[in-house]
Amino acid sequence: MMVAVIGTGVLSGLGGIALSVMLHTIQHLAYGYGQVGGPHNFVQGVSAAPPWRRFAALCMAGVVAGVGWWALGRFGRPLVSIAAAVGKQPGSGRVMPPLSTVVHVLLQIVTVALGSPLGREVAPRELGAVLATGTGRVMGLTAEDRRIIIACGAGAGLSAVYNVPLGGALFILEVLLASVGQRAVLCAVATSAIGAFVPWAVLGNVHQYAIGPMAVTAPVVLWALCAGPVIGIGAQGVKRLAGVAQNRAAKGLSRIGWCLVVFPALGVLTCFYPQLPGNGRGPMQLALSAQLGPGLAGSLLVLKIIVIMGALRAGAAGGLLTPSLTMGALLASVLASVWNLWLPPVEVGTVALLGGIAFLGTFMSMPLTAVALGIEFTQVGHDMWIPIFLTSAGAMLTFRFSARARRPVVQAQPDAPGSVSARS
Amino acid sequence: MMVAVIGTGVLSGLGGIALSVMLHTIQHLAYGYGQVGGPHNFVQGVSAAPPWRRFAALCMAGVVAGVGWWALGRFGRPLVSIAAAVGKQPGSGRVMPPLSTVVHVLLQIVTVALGSPLGREVAPRELGAVLATGTGRVMGLTAEDRRIIIACGAGAGLSAVYNVPLGGALFILEVLLASVGQRAVLCAVATSAIGAFVPWAVLGNVHQYAIGPMAVTAPVVLWALCAGPVIGIGAQGVKRLAGVAQNRAAKGLSRIGWCLVVFPALGVLTCFYPQLPGNGRGPMQLALSAQLGPGLAGSLLVLKIIVIMGALRAGAAGGLLTPSLTMGALLASVLASVWNLWLPPVEVGTVALLGGIAFLGTFMSMPLTAVALGIEFTQVGHDMWIPIFLTSAGAMLTFRFSARARRPVVQAQPDAPGSVSARS
Repeated sequence: MMVAVIGTGVLSGLGGIALSVMLHTIQHLAYGYGQVGGPHNFVQGVSAAPPWRRFAALCMAGVVAGVGWWALGRFGRPLVSIAAAVGKQPGSGRVMPPLSTVVHVLLQIVTVALGSPLGREVAPRELGAVLATGTGRVMGLTAEDRRIIIACGAGAGLSAVYNVPLGGALFILEVLLASVGQRAVLCAVATSAIGAFVPWAVLGNVHQYAIGPMAVTAPVVLWALCAGPVIGIGAQGVKRLAGVAQNRAAKGLSRIGWCLVVFPALGVLTCFYPQLPGNGRGPMQLALSAQLGPGLAGSLLVLKIIVIMGALRAGAAGGLLTPSLTMGALLASVLASVWNLWLPPVEVGTVALLGGIAFLGTFMSMPLTAVALGIEFTQVGHDMWIPIFLTSAGAMLTFRFSARARRPVVQAQPDAPGSVSARS
Repeated sequence: MMVAVIGTGVLSGLGGIALSVMLHTIQHLAYGYGQVGGPHNFVQGVSAAPPWRRFAALCMAGVVAGVGWWALGRFGRPLVSIAAAVGKQPGSGRVMPPLSTVVHVLLQIVTVALGSPLGREVAPRELGAVLATGTGRVMGLTAEDRRIIIACGAGAGLSAVYNVPLGGALFILEVLLASVGQRAVLCAVATSAIGAFVPWAVLGNVHQYAIGPMAVTAPVVLWALCAGPVIGIGAQGVKRLAGVAQNRAAKGLSRIGWCLVVFPALGVLTCFYPQLPGNGRGPMQLALSAQLGPGLAGSLLVLKIIVIMGALRAGAAGGLLTPSLTMGALLASVLASVWNLWLPPVEVGTVALLGGIAFLGTFMSMPLTAVALGIEFTQVGHDMWIPIFLTSAGAMLTFRFSARARRPVVQAQPDAPGSVSARS
């Protein structure tokens, strides 16, 4: 098991490197900005690209997504989500088909690089899980240990692309295994650390978001207490929408048709809003830097929700981690602008971080992992951890309370196309 | 439940304030150094005190510990540990006797302030748990919710005295509840954050340890991989010793006799080693600052182990959190000095932190909580998290492996006097 843990960490790390390099290469080729010099990030690259190029890139994304997933559904073996592979009961896990899953992973990376509004983090998770499945089989592990190692592979993949050792470990424990048994903790900590460390050699010790100094002031704490419930309700609304969109996701040949409508439409919007394509990292960084006025933040929030629902309805697959972080930050930016009209002012970038983490934790039902991810993405100072916790707890509490009071949140059906990845 | 969670967080925070203020007041009175100006911490205060005063303080600690715990055992109601109160099965929890537990808490704080080598962190945990028990009863919670709220009170108490919102939350989830269910996570995050935040108003936003800049170099990573197993074996050895000492802990009148021998003997040692009394925060800080030579670190390590075992054998109660952190840091300092003789040198303060966290997690069987505590105690930068994870995983793995290969580690019996607190 020890060898399997180390091997899984290293393999997931290598997988993370490969996918990250592929993503960035395609982004640079598609939008035609230089790797060295010139624009430094995706939003700047898209902004620098001429409108026809943005439109063309997203048309290509539509073709790849439509034809690719149609062909995968037609000719590939049925996909198995990570959640199904890990299973709830020992021994009940289904096996992820290696080839089909790798194609699925590549389709996600290519479409996200071309501008799909879904997240890129499911791909390395699935790749890590597939590699771990192989490792577990080669090492002849027991069924229970195989479950653990598959979950570890997925978490280490996440840890690798985002450099988040603690977030990856908590993702394994909170989301995939739902356990804090010592064996699980030990494997999770070790694989996630190795998975995060291996990419340092190639990608460097990167951090996702740059933030300025943030201070815990009385208005920030007050804002955290008041805004948490609002963010919880917002996350619930978007989750209901996403559930509907995923359950109605296009199947078969109509998937091609839908993709060829949704992605070019996004391409048109992109001509006006270069912040829109991609998983949302760009607008997240802008929100953290308080570079979005309330009008732009509000517009981006509405458009983001529309295009994400469109992509899910069209049957595209991808994660919702960065997208939900971004939606939360945009919502918080809008709330902060309203707040600052009458109430003791808060720093907009600071509360954008609080809102993003709270929305992510609520939307994905993983408050602890979301807190760790938010802290690691930004390396925010320890003092800010308390308002982060308070906002997240308030959002989650409201979410649970209102979900029980009213009809339950529509869950995407396990076998809906596209949903395999968005929640796995 | 929401009201209970908020109330428990606030009460545990207030309890933490009261115990911290009491601890520091007694320390200042006993060793006679000023609150303002003069020595800034306990080690400096003890060093500045004349030898007779050190000896006298520890004699008094012996009297208080011996007579106090004898009287509590003779006249008080039987104590119930937090672990027993939380219980494993819903509804199986025993009720902590309020008055006896508060006396037990005060005895711990007084003896630690006077120089007992055990930790002070069990006292706020027990106080928080007792207050939460009352809250749960007043609010009429269900048995399952009462379990959760008692665990939350204990974790929030820990969070309050050390300003560790994440560590407190993970302590609740990993150690007390052994669950990452959403309800548990939500309650843990909220109470721990509130518990950490309330003391800011009185004690300020304090951090336990000051560290210099730490860099992840190749030798540090290599050291982490090699030293982890050694630290795991060390933790196992000390755990076996502690189990034996706790199972043989003095009971009844002999408790007074033992305390009147062990504590004055510590008082004599204290005349030569002013770093020795107290929970170990002082030598931990010196180790992190690389201010201990290998000789002094080795001597302190051996003496620390002896006096801790003596205090446990004498039936004194207290925590082993800071003591085990300190033992790990001292062991790592010694290992680093040997390493630096022949191998590519590592910074001694840096690896002292790695060793302390790994020892703590292994010794207390809580790797995840220990990592979070170590990070929060020192606010160490994100880059260092990976070697921290690697050292802890290596130590824990060796611990588990060797515990299975040889006879199992001697566990302190649940009803051994003194052991109630040391592991609860």
